[in-house]
Amino acid sequence: MRLEELAGKCGEWLRGSGPESDIVVSSRIRLARNLADYPFIRKCTGLDRAAIEKTLRDKFAQIPGFRDVAYWDVNGLPDVDRQFLVERQLISREHADADGARGVVIDPNEQFSLMVNEEDHLRIQVMHSGLDLPSAWEQINRIDDVMEEHVYYAFHERLGYLTACPTNVGTGMRVSVMLHLPALVLTRQIEKVFRSLHKISLAVRGLYGEGSQAMGDFYQVSNQITLGKTEAELIQQVSEVAPALIEYERKARQYLVDESRRELHDRVSRAYGLLCTAQTISSEETMQLLSSVRMGVNLGLIRDVAIPTVNQLFIHTQRAHLQKLRGMELDTIERDIERANYLRRHLKGGSTSDGPGQN
Amino acid sequence: MRLEELAGKCGEWLRGSGPESDIVVSSRIRLARNLADYPFIRKCTGLDRAAIEKTLRDKFAQIPGFRDVAYWDVNGLPDVDRQFLVERQLISREHADADGARGVVIDPNEQFSLMVNEEDHLRIQVMHSGLDLPSAWEQINRIDDVMEEHVYYAFHERLGYLTACPTNVGTGMRVSVMLHLPALVLTRQIEKVFRSLHKISLAVRGLYGEGSQAMGDFYQVSNQITLGKTEAELIQQVSEVAPALIEYERKARQYLVDESRRELHDRVSRAYGLLCTAQTISSEETMQLLSSVRMGVNLGLIRDVAIPTVNQLFIHTQRAHLQKLRGMELDTIERDIERANYLRRHLKGGSTSDGPGQN
Repeated sequence: MRLEELAGKCGEWLRGSGPESDIVVSSRIRLARNLADYPFIRKCTGLDRAAIEKTLRDKFAQIPGFRDVAYWDVNGLPDVDRQFLVERQLISREHADADGARGVVIDPNEQFSLMVNEEDHLRIQVMHSGLDLPSAWEQINRIDDVMEEHVYYAFHERLGYLTACPTNVGTGMRVSVMLHLPALVLTRQIEKVFRSLHKISLAVRGLYGEGSQAMGDFYQVSNQITLGKTEAELIQQVSEVAPALIEYERKARQYLVDESRRELHDRVSRAYGLLCTAQTISSEETMQLLSSVRMGVNLGLIRDVAIPTVNQLFIHTQRAHLQKLRGMELDTIERDIERANYLRRHLKGGSTSDGPGQN
Repeated sequence: MRLEELAGKCGEWLRGSGPESDIVVSSRIRLARNLADYPFIRKCTGLDRAAIEKTLRDKFAQIPGFRDVAYWDVNGLPDVDRQFLVERQLISREHADADGARGVVIDPNEQFSLMVNEEDHLRIQVMHSGLDLPSAWEQINRIDDVMEEHVYYAFHERLGYLTACPTNVGTGMRVSVMLHLPALVLTRQIEKVFRSLHKISLAVRGLYGEGSQAMGDFYQVSNQITLGKTEAELIQQVSEVAPALIEYERKARQYLVDESRRELHDRVSRAYGLLCTAQTISSEETMQLLSSVRMGVNLGLIRDVAIPTVNQLFIHTQRAHLQKLRGMELDTIERDIERANYLRRHLKGGSTSDGPGQN
């Protein structure tokens, strides 16, 4: 499989078919695992890393369930391809930016990926559409079991799975849901919600993990602590808080509809109009306008576009995607133009002539 | 003729068919005349005014060329109808706001109108599309001659026509062109142009005459002085300066196209997108966006809409027009909504669902 093929497709988690997918974009679980026979990554020599990479790669090839997956040598990929995989949420920013032997296994449905030599030797990730942690858990548990049949994980009777960072020791599990919370942002309640989440030891991050700014009003809510808790408890914690967050967001949307329906309709409709007609547009503005449109579609205020299209535009209008889809390198100015072209092509209506001399 | 019938129509000067009509919206000439038998308006009693109104009204009825015109008793019109005639440029704001007996004759093509008891007893106005002062002059001269066959004008051998305000004494003529100068505004050259015009005794005003702000980048350029000049000289002065202004504006547009085509295209295209999708919009924002769209159409950057439509939207989206077209009184909030609805209905593309509950 070539990355270009992936570019034109759309991961399962973007289909917007899962439960509560008007607010919960995706449910994600990742497990951190290390091979017992090698030091943690930070203590590894280059040869150690290469050996880990080869070992795991060979094991993947032996697993019947991995027949359709693609393995990518991340170290050998050009910048734009690594960035592409980050935008796709298949590898972390850290994995893209690191050095040395490392790779990633990608399921053709993009429901799961396995990073080799990220912070830990192996990081398994499963991502499902909507609020659906049980099925994500079922899948990742199965993958983890299959892997364990082929490799010796670093495991301690009392502590559980051993990981490079102490915060991951135990289950090595991070459970998260990606939420779209535009109404909580608009009604200025989002900070209050975050403070409440921090009090119960849940972390809040933006679209692309730690430290990334919340773009497009997307927020990832996940557990902070893994030691001393079972997998079931961790899943339960996030599963329990998600419905409350969904309800807050729904109430905020209803409040906006009840109290200022006209302004809300105007806001989302204008956002759609700008996306349909801009001739050059930044990534930030695109995210912001798409966020308004996404809420507008979910509230029935915009009917000309479907949620999967909007979800996909969030990803496809990012810099590496634009370049992969166009099949050429583009600088910032060219990307802003290509982004506007791409948006106009994929959103109905609002057509203006492209005019003579248009790229 | 009912005013409602006028509302749905479009005056000849809005058809955008005249010479240079990408920049010169209309050419206008008005003549100030007074009846020799009555004092100037400011010295008139209510009875005098009523007598003047009756005299002129009776004369109009005798003129064969006025068979198709409508006479409106401006004093008897409700506020919204007077405002409607101002927006239509058929009467002045002052005429709308005054007290006492007064009226207006309106040609069904809206090429000419005659105000009774404005600042002078009679003000004749002719307005043609594009830069076309000679034909406007020909028509107004004919009307003036016809009137003079029926009434005695206050005329002084040496001074010429006598008028209420000394600045109008002589020919009683004001010659003006309405220019659309968005590129001179955008390139910040407009103030410089105005200073040059003032030096040669030309006045610059907004869309609705004295003191009105330049809305939608429309500017009315006219002679300041009439005494001591012949009609031909006054027409020549404005006729000579108009091509220079047209050239400045064209150069500014070309500069924008050459130096920042993309930004310009983006600006006009987004303006179009907003007009096509807003759910509520003020008059000021509408004027500003329509101005961008008008330039965009004239530069071939927008092709989905025709100039006569844009010209008409400038007039039809104003407050009295919206109410006449809708057939009901509307407050500010309702007007902003009706304006957005009207714009969406009359501009192609950029459709978003009106959503449930949308009126």
